[in-house]
Amino acid sequence: MKRIAESTVRRLSIYLGFLEKAEQRGVLTTSSDDLAKLGGTTSAQVRKDLSFFGSFGKRGLGYSVPELSSRIREILGLGRSWNVCIVGAGKIGSALAQYAGFAHRGFIVTGVYDSDRARVGSRLAGLTVRDTTTLGADVAAGEYEIVVLTVPPENAQDVVDLVVGAGAKAILSFAPTQLTVPADVELRTVNMAMELEALTFALTNRDR
Amino acid sequence: MKRIAESTVRRLSIYLGFLEKAEQRGVLTTSSDDLAKLGGTTSAQVRKDLSFFGSFGKRGLGYSVPELSSRIREILGLGRSWNVCIVGAGKIGSALAQYAGFAHRGFIVTGVYDSDRARVGSRLAGLTVRDTTTLGADVAAGEYEIVVLTVPPENAQDVVDLVVGAGAKAILSFAPTQLTVPADVELRTVNMAMELEALTFALTNRDR
Repeated sequence: MKRIAESTVRRLSIYLGFLEKAEQRGVLTTSSDDLAKLGGTTSAQVRKDLSFFGSFGKRGLGYSVPELSSRIREILGLGRSWNVCIVGAGKIGSALAQYAGFAHRGFIVTGVYDSDRARVGSRLAGLTVRDTTTLGADVAAGEYEIVVLTVPPENAQDVVDLVVGAGAKAILSFAPTQLTVPADVELRTVNMAMELEALTFALTNRDR
Repeated sequence: MKRIAESTVRRLSIYLGFLEKAEQRGVLTTSSDDLAKLGGTTSAQVRKDLSFFGSFGKRGLGYSVPELSSRIREILGLGRSWNVCIVGAGKIGSALAQYAGFAHRGFIVTGVYDSDRARVGSRLAGLTVRDTTTLGADVAAGEYEIVVLTVPPENAQDVVDLVVGAGAKAILSFAPTQLTVPADVELRTVNMAMELEALTFALTNRDR
């Protein structure tokens, strides 16, 4: 498979969100123009994005909504469920553990970890919070496909090194800090501080 | 002021995170090389990023950590506090309302809204949850500079239209959907579904 740009993957996510809404409304076909509007791009780009993954749609007839959404789900790896652990059972970690939207998309939280003895052993979203000292062994045993980090920034790189050393290949971090991983590990960061700073930058530098 | 690229603003956030850690450790000077490593860029790019905002540093001596961090905080609009309201008092909204990291950076949550009568009037993070029907008037009265959206995706555009109509200029959305705003409104989106899909895409298409 050709190397797919990150921006293409993002647009596939956007197309899928739209297609799923269309399915709920009972819409059966859509066009590259409709998809382009959503993705903030052109219909030529939509056709190019989809052409990476084989042939879709018929000229003049558009795309079948159920067929295209099912194919994009498959491309994005959403045709199955994924075991997720959450490291850090503070406020954000607890909210994520209970977040229904995860399970809905096939992300099953099967483990929650914390290094704070006061939290270890407590119940969260139907799970018992485990001690982070066992995390490496659990990851190495293949218990999780995705590790979600909700630890303080100063501990984040240590946890990354621990789970990467144990074989983790996909990490989603909520820690507001830069993290480094080997090239074969996929790391995504949700950095709320950075998003807020982009807002305050815009508010501060407006009208100048 | 020249139009500053979004990527420059993101790097300023990264530099600032690093400078604040350096300050805590008592480090007094840093170089464009150090900053470049963090930002995943070159020292020439760092000097270019900073040159937008005037002259910093002395050739051969590097940058003063306290001076540069204070200047970047000012550029990013962090030299003051910002009133924030959270719309949607579900799990994610509640977690954010209680998130200490917000206040630490000068983001003060001064209002929480929900359209569910069962939640309106309940207490959250020291605030009484208000009815979303009053949100427009409160935004129009200038109560908030930043609106954080943690509503279900199907309601998100309606809330955006409501607050934009009332004069909101900065929105951070956690709703997993595409939203549209006028050109003079800054909208940032934290889309966890999209980040997770980037991970599962990478896991699924690995080694092909």
